[in-house]
Parts: sequence; structure tokens; C-alpha cells
Amino acid sequence: MEKLTAPKLMLGSPNVYADILHVTGFKAPDPVVVLQTRKECFLAVSRMELGRARAANPALTVVTPEELGVPVAQRRRLSAWAVALLKRAGVKRVEVPASFPLGTARRLEGAGVRLRVVEGAFISQRAIKRADEIEHLRAVQQSTVDAMGVARDLIRRSHAGRNGELRLAGAPLTSERVRRAINEALLQQDCIGGEPIVACGEQGADPHGVGHGPLRAGEPIVIDIFPQHQETGYWGDLTRTVVKGRPTPTVARLYRAVRAAQARGLALVKAGRPGAAIHRAVTLVMEQHGFSNRTVDGVPEGFTHGTGHGVGLEIHEAPSLARTDGVLHVGNVLTVEPGLYYREHGGMRIEDTVVVTRVGFEYLATCPKTLVIP
Amino acid sequence: MEKLTAPKLMLGSPNVYADILHVTGFKAPDPVVVLQTRKECFLAVSRMELGRARAANPALTVVTPEELGVPVAQRRRLSAWAVALLKRAGVKRVEVPASFPLGTARRLEGAGVRLRVVEGAFISQRAIKRADEIEHLRAVQQSTVDAMGVARDLIRRSHAGRNGELRLAGAPLTSERVRRAINEALLQQDCIGGEPIVACGEQGADPHGVGHGPLRAGEPIVIDIFPQHQETGYWGDLTRTVVKGRPTPTVARLYRAVRAAQARGLALVKAGRPGAAIHRAVTLVMEQHGFSNRTVDGVPEGFTHGTGHGVGLEIHEAPSLARTDGVLHVGNVLTVEPGLYYREHGGMRIEDTVVVTRVGFEYLATCPKTLVIP
Repeated sequence: MEKLTAPKLMLGSPNVYADILHVTGFKAPDPVVVLQTRKECFLAVSRMELGRARAANPALTVVTPEELGVPVAQRRRLSAWAVALLKRAGVKRVEVPASFPLGTARRLEGAGVRLRVVEGAFISQRAIKRADEIEHLRAVQQSTVDAMGVARDLIRRSHAGRNGELRLAGAPLTSERVRRAINEALLQQDCIGGEPIVACGEQGADPHGVGHGPLRAGEPIVIDIFPQHQETGYWGDLTRTVVKGRPTPTVARLYRAVRAAQARGLALVKAGRPGAAIHRAVTLVMEQHGFSNRTVDGVPEGFTHGTGHGVGLEIHEAPSLARTDGVLHVGNVLTVEPGLYYREHGGMRIEDTVVVTRVGFEYLATCPKTLVIP
Repeated sequence: MEKLTAPKLMLGSPNVYADILHVTGFKAPDPVVVLQTRKECFLAVSRMELGRARAANPALTVVTPEELGVPVAQRRRLSAWAVALLKRAGVKRVEVPASFPLGTARRLEGAGVRLRVVEGAFISQRAIKRADEIEHLRAVQQSTVDAMGVARDLIRRSHAGRNGELRLAGAPLTSERVRRAINEALLQQDCIGGEPIVACGEQGADPHGVGHGPLRAGEPIVIDIFPQHQETGYWGDLTRTVVKGRPTPTVARLYRAVRAAQARGLALVKAGRPGAAIHRAVTLVMEQHGFSNRTVDGVPEGFTHGTGHGVGLEIHEAPSLARTDGVLHVGNVLTVEPGLYYREHGGMRIEDTVVVTRVGFEYLATCPKTLVIP
């Protein structure tokens, strides 16, 4: 039986919900309703937003609850907007994303609308970036690289005190201080840095800990910067791990393994290659370097996460370089970021964000991968 | 019939989903599952997050999909975590928020779980701030006031060129430049500014336009700053409208009306008062000053939005000072922000964020309300 594609229905704030921003090109904090049929794309907004919405994208059919005849008492209910919009468009069956709000779904079903839940990517074309999107991604990734330079520079200019803690200009060089410098550099380029990771020593063994307190010489410092550009909404993603001064032999081994694993992963990136195959090959390189996964007190150690993820209007989106995904396509933008994590030695991760091409990949922006900062 | 309260089930990223952050006190970018029963609060996290989650809140029962016996093939499915967690807790009926994802809901229903959708606030105690929350809110609001001072100062130090456009240090003073200075000031205090509104003249007539290009003398400049503190997650919210030099008589009238409307709104804030009554009284003040609502080319003009909204771990949360809400309670934190918007004259809004007390209100932080910047 042929699977018919029904019109797509989405609800939410375009500033939060990347699918809506992608389909409409309209930025707004307040929620909207979008109905995409084969012929037309409807955007229902409050009257307050009407002018901005029409100006943002002339290809949209912009409507308000008033025009749709939503009764005054229901004007604050997005489900009432959706019911009225579907009626206007003559649509009775829609596809909705798995994240569609249950409360709204029940009201729509109560009004006789049939909903088909689409698992996984809803606006699947988001994974294949257009040329203008790649330019936006290049720009934010270049800002990310520049911010990494600021972080490296602080560590380069610091020196180790007697206890091994780094100091700069008479004060301890802390995770917080480096994080703030990163965020300031990003802000200069209209990017919001959020909470970049600057995690030293055992703190780096937790892939999501952001790091705090003084940085120390001789220990790996994981620096993961993932800003969003304020205007365009696109994200950058970049990780480097550095050591101030001399790394221990084990840390040097971790670096060689991760560096080789990333090189292997990058070499395998090309259109048509299954993401899972790349992840397996990268995992194998780790094992060949003697770093297998293990569990210590119930906590996994080793290469504990996937090899990479798509980047676009969301920091994590399709495609994924992990266990269970499909093949890469020209125009995918994704990270390649193998890492090793051991409580005893800390974390080690090297991450770049690249575009998939027919024959391989291109960096969005390049950044040195040197471990040691003298 | 008595309405029994079933255990509450929530899914999502604590960094995005304020209810989860509030209940668990655990910050993380990746999604988790939370089950709150009368006796116990369960938090299911990936093994990678286990250590951080246990450290964040010893009162939680932290579990992983592995401990719950989720089959390997389903470990990436949050619905599978939820099914296993409910089984472990012996729960078959749960309450979920209206925003609960439909895809997950269908899988849970398929596994025999009954879901009751709660409309409106799900973790309703969030609207009543504890003392420590009020301290966090005071801190971020003080940073917001400081950033407003930076914006005012730039405008004060500027001068009008021949065409009326403001200039400072040899370059035009633009919305973008003031916005960046605001964000830099906020970042110094670990706050993320997002896109503060700096909207001059007719740009200010659109309550959500962020503003762009050169600022001009003699026209109202709406400055709305709403940062989130990076560590605590709480938001500030503050708006002032200023004029560089001499306002037109109409702008001066708009200011007097909005100032009087805000004073009236603030005077009515106290525990037990219905939010809708406050909004009606504020609207009446606008009308008494000769500013009624009207529609021009389908676009509403006048006092086009509600009087205020709650502020906490979300920038817009309960309670609301608008048409359809309940009474205020001691410990509510909310904005009082009447505004007037006319395409011809621009926007005018004055907004403060206050705590509701038994007898009235307290400012979280105070900020001058002067219109004119000489």
C-alpha cells in the first residue's frame, strides 16, 4: 500500500522550535501554528506579529486567529487556532512530530482531526544544508574557532604556581575565567556561548560537566565551545583538549589514540557511507590503541558516546554517527568527535564540524589540534 | 467524586524544561525521565550523567536504563526508560503536562499506562517562589538594572547629528551597538542576554521587534532586557522607554499614560487580588488618558498585550495579569508592564518585576523611570 504524505502540522515558538524556524524563516518568541500542505504553507500568528510575519517570508500565507474566526474566548488556545486553520485549509488528516504536545493532540482528535505521528526527523530536509545555510554554519564555526584561540591564548600566557595551579596576571586561571573570556569573544561576533566546557583533570572525565575552579599544569583540559548565532540561529561546535606544560605518558597516549580515531572518522566521511560504519571504525581505532570500554562502579569509562551528530538550527540534529543510523548525504553538516574518559586520567576529546561532500568532507573552519601549550 | 492525584511523569532536558529543573535541581543538556510519586522522586538518566545527578540532589532516587533493565536495543528511547521506571515504581496511571510528547504518550498507552493530561501549570508550586528562589531572582534583576544603566549611559553620552541620528565616539549609535553593550554588561555577571529589545520610533510599535539601525533624538526608544542567569537558570525582566532630547507632546502624553497605568497596576498588586481585575484597572487608566485600543489595517494599536506575567525559571510563567486568570499569592514574582503602541508615534512601555506580598509588592530591584535623557 502506498504511504500518502499528509499535510504537516507544527505548533510552538519559532525561536525554540527549529523545524518551524526552518520552514517559515520567521523568528518570534511567541507560539505559532504552521500547516504545510503540498501547495501552500500557512502560518497562524497573533495579530501583534502579523506585520513582522508577512515581512519575514512573502511565500507564506499568514493568518491570525481573528481572520480564522476563532471565538474570542478561545483566542489564547493554540489548539483552537489549529482547528480553525485546518478547517480553512480543508484538511482532516495531518502528520505531526513525535514531540507534538499531547494536550493539543487530544483537543484536535476531539474536533475530528486524525494525527499521524512521524518518528525521527520531521522536516527531514533540514539534514541537507542549502548553500546559504552552509555559509551561516561556516560563519558561526569560524567565530567558535576564534573563541578557542582566545582560550588557548589565556592558557599560553599563564604559568604554573608551586601547587601546579595556573595563574595569570596575579590571579588563578580558572574554568570560570576562561569560560567568560570565550563568551566575551563570541558575543563580539553576535554569538551566544551558553556554558562552554572548560574541564581540567578528572572533571573532564564527565563529558557533560562544564568544569570549575583552578586549571592545573600537566593535566588535560577539555575545551568544548558550542555557540548559537543570534541572528541566524545556526550553531557551531568545536572541542580541543590541551595540556599546559608536560603531559603524563598516559595522557600523551590518550591524545594519540583520539587524534588517530578522529583522523580515521574524518577519512571515512563521504556521501553514501553509513554513520554506524564510521562509528564502528572509530571505536576500533580506540581499541587498537589499547583503550576499550569498561565500567567502574557502574560508571562507563572509555569511548562512552557516539562519534558525532548533525549541527544546524539545533546543536544536536540528524544525522548521527552512532549505532543505529542511515547513510550520509551531500550537504550533511556534522561533528566528528571521538573522546576517551577515565576518572583517573581525565577527558580527551577532539571535535570538528564538517560538511559532507560527494568524495569526502570539508571543514567549516580549521583549528590547530596541538595538545601541548608550552 | 474525589479527584485523586496520580504520580507525575515528565520527560525532557532539564536545561530546557523548567519543571524538571525545578523538581530535580539537576542541570543537564540531555533528556531525562522524572517520576514524582507521593513518597519518592525518581530521576532516570544515562549512565554518563549518573555521578552528576546523584551529587546534584541526594533526595532523588537516581536510576539508569541499565539498572531498570531496559533492553539494549531500546536504550536510546526515552519512552522505554519511562515504561521501565513506571514498572519499577509500580505505577500504572500518571499525570502528564499538556506539552507531553505525543509519540511517547502513544508508546506508553501501548504499554498499558494511563495518562491524564494536566492543563496549565504542571508543577504549580513553581508560581510561589521560595526564599532562595527570590534571592536568585533579585540577583538577576539587579544585573538587568545594571545593564539598563549601561544602555542609558550610552544614550546620555551620545549627541544628535544633523539628521537627528545619535552618534557616539565618531560612529552612529545603533540598536545593535546598545544591544551588544547590554549583553557585555550582562555577561560580566554570568547572565545571558539573548536579544534585548532596543527599538526606536516606529520600530517600537511592534512589541516583539528587537530594533535595528541608528537611534534618533526626539523619538521613544523602548529598551527591554530579559536575561537568564547561567548558573541558577532564573530570569530577569525590565523595560524602560527613553527619549534623547525633547519628546513630542504626544510622546510625553504616552509616557504619562503608561507611567500612571503602571503605578495603578503596582498599587493593586497584593495577595488575593485577581490578575484580571488588575489588568482591567490598568486598561481603564489608559482609556482615561485618551488611549483606547483600535485596529489599523488589521493591526491592533493601543494597549495590545496583557499587564504582566510570572517570571522564574521561565521568562513567561504563571501567574498572568491578563484576562483569564486566578488570584495572586504571596511569593508570586511577576512583571507589571503596561505599554502603548502606535505606528505613528512608536512604542512606550515601562516594566518592573516584583514579588507579591501579603499587603502589596516589593521591587526585586529598582531602576529610575525617567523618560528624558538630556
